[in-house]
Amino acid sequence: MSGKGVKAPELDVVSWLNTTQPLTLAGLRGKVVVLHAFQMLCPGCVSHGLPQAAAIHQLYPVDEVQVIGLHTVFEHHSVMTLDALQAFVHEYRLRFPIAVDRPSASSAIPHTMQKLDLEGTPSLLLIDKQGFIRTHHFGRLSDLQVGNMIGQLLMEPASLSPSSPSGTEPAATPQTPGGQCSEDGCSI
Amino acid sequence: MSGKGVKAPELDVVSWLNTTQPLTLAGLRGKVVVLHAFQMLCPGCVSHGLPQAAAIHQLYPVDEVQVIGLHTVFEHHSVMTLDALQAFVHEYRLRFPIAVDRPSASSAIPHTMQKLDLEGTPSLLLIDKQGFIRTHHFGRLSDLQVGNMIGQLLMEPASLSPSSPSGTEPAATPQTPGGQCSEDGCSI
Amino acid sequence: MSGKGVKAPELDVVSWLNTTQPLTLAGLRGKVVVLHAFQMLCPGCVSHGLPQAAAIHQLYPVDEVQVIGLHTVFEHHSVMTLDALQAFVHEYRLRFPIAVDRPSASSAIPHTMQKLDLEGTPSLLLIDKQGFIRTHHFGRLSDLQVGNMIGQLLMEPASLSPSSPSGTEPAATPQTPGGQCSEDGCSI
Amino acid sequence: MSGKGVKAPELDVVSWLNTTQPLTLAGLRGKVVVLHAFQMLCPGCVSHGLPQAAAIHQLYPVDEVQVIGLHTVFEHHSVMTLDALQAFVHEYRLRFPIAVDRPSASSAIPHTMQKLDLEGTPSLLLIDKQGFIRTHHFGRLSDLQVGNMIGQLLMEPASLSPSSPSGTEPAATPQTPGGQCSEDGCSI
Repeated sequence: MSGKGVKAPELDVVSWLNTTQPLTLAGLRGKVVVLHAFQMLCPGCVSHGLPQAAAIHQLYPVDEVQVIGLHTVFEHHSVMTLDALQAFVHEYRLRFPIAVDRPSASSAIPHTMQKLDLEGTPSLLLIDKQGFIRTHHFGRLSDLQVGNMIGQLLMEPASLSPSSPSGTEPAATPQTPGGQCSEDGCSI
Repeated sequence: MSGKGVKAPELDVVSWLNTTQPLTLAGLRGKVVVLHAFQMLCPGCVSHGLPQAAAIHQLYPVDEVQVIGLHTVFEHHSVMTLDALQAFVHEYRLRFPIAVDRPSASSAIPHTMQKLDLEGTPSLLLIDKQGFIRTHHFGRLSDLQVGNMIGQLLMEPASLSPSSPSGTEPAATPQTPGGQCSEDGCSI
Repeated sequence: MSGKGVKAPELDVVSWLNTTQPLTLAGLRGKVVVLHAFQMLCPGCVSHGLPQAAAIHQLYPVDEVQVIGLHTVFEHHSVMTLDALQAFVHEYRLRFPIAVDRPSASSAIPHTMQKLDLEGTPSLLLIDKQGFIRTHHFGRLSDLQVGNMIGQLLMEPASLSPSSPSGTEPAATPQTPGGQCSEDGCSI
Repeated sequence: MSGKGVKAPELDVVSWLNTTQPLTLAGLRGKVVVLHAFQMLCPGCVSHGLPQAAAIHQLYPVDEVQVIGLHTVFEHHSVMTLDALQAFVHEYRLRFPIAVDRPSASSAIPHTMQKLDLEGTPSLLLIDKQGFIRTHHFGRLSDLQVGNMIGQLLMEPASLSPSSPSGTEPAATPQTPGGQCSEDGCSI
């Protein structure tokens, strides 16, 4: 968690659920942002990733940690529609803001997913108070690991200071091998 | 498990997955049939009912126990389509035959769901070798309970005999209170 | 489950908990007996075997299925005493009858454990209404498997009849490789 | 996690397992200390507390976070002996240092347990790099909560500085109601 990573590119999405107005990463400076990329038909997202995101949303005050779900559909596009997502979110009682990634005209991979260079779903990104991506993980991370990383990010100052670390690498996180959907996730 | 229950009405369905030809209850006489009614957007089905059905399918030889999934959509009809179900079944690696209940022109409740008088999803029906419904349960049953009931049904003779019990009531199973989707299931 | 197995040798034990008078297998003819051999310091027994035994005890009427715990100490004899077992049974809220296997003067393996030819703990023995061992398993069996086997045994007649099967082999159950304690159990 | 809490009193123990030489809190200044108080016959410790302590021990480098188990026997003293604990630690494959609290001549409650004012087992204490108790919890905390708190403590400086917060209250943690052993723990 010592490195600054890269600045998170802004979300490029077409719809929002569970929020009265769209969120922007720029508007969330000063908070730790937990961005959970998922697909509603990804088993690892349903069994592990989304419950973890919901637990984070429940544990932290929203003025300190903002959980955002990002529906990044890269397969079965015709059935993972906004209507379907709305029914899914209703039935699974998800309460945190969820954005729908903007479909690409030329690729199966939607725009934000491309910009974030995600490998599949579930993916977890932790963005610090200054907007840098500090954790970028495809697959499963334990609650202990995620809690630890959020706790560390919360202790950092909200604004840039001359003594802040820079030029270092983001913390490496273990990678889950991909190749379609496994128990842990769906890879591109 | 002592009673004979009622004769299971024939399935009235529009599509089948995971089988080269449609199944009929009449054609399954001599086997114990495990009929698992579910919806792909029912959390209790995804977390409990379908994994239990898959475990049953894996444990028993198919010439003794036939597991059938029945997709009984009674809400969110526009998004729980056949295409969506196919993607769901593919991603969740379900291997047992799954039928799509026939939609009703006049009701949200599809035909077989009405004929079987189901209260919601997940529902588990155990049908004996002679075609009688012996267990009819809405909500969650433990693996121990379900294994016990299937084990008992397997010990019964395949054909009617003069000494077989009749006129008694089916075994009562505990009921889960309904009212939309809860952690355990979705009620009508 | 088609074979008759061998007649279960009588228990040879020194103490009983959770029962006002000692049980004998001979006195349980007509019931299915679930004999769960365990050690209080065996992790697989604590996490899996004993909860399964407790669930069986809770599910079935005691006039149909008798659960018996058998404390078969074959290691750490000096600390797995009767006093320690009593504290353990109290803290873990175990309600079914538990017997303490008789220590051997010449071996680390206690008497009943030797007579039953157990490989370690946890071990599950299912004894039919006529006193034959029908399942003899070291390690973990799923609730679905155990429920299925008990259900089948319950359907058998309580007394010997001329047409009963004989001379066949007991059902094979999957074996867990041994070698001290693993997550699943402790082998001799 | 903003308050400093009270200085942790030194451990008063009679034996150590899994360490070649005794540890002292004074000797651990500069590290975050995770002190897990347990009893080997406490079901909530075995099912939840000790696995959590083992996961913490595995996740963090020992030069940053020191996990210590503290065997605080306040009931069943005659059977939770050092020999029994050694067998328990061996069978459960616990790897982190474990201390045995010093029995009291005048009370069922051992010395360190009294000094720390513990309510029962499992109890989790998080001690910061300067030796202050920052979390003091009886019962169950989620991995997300514990990871978050450790992550925050890791970000604090190792030595006192003039600008360090002081005079504030320790973070409140949810309390589990006590009264003998429940699923979550054993209270005094």
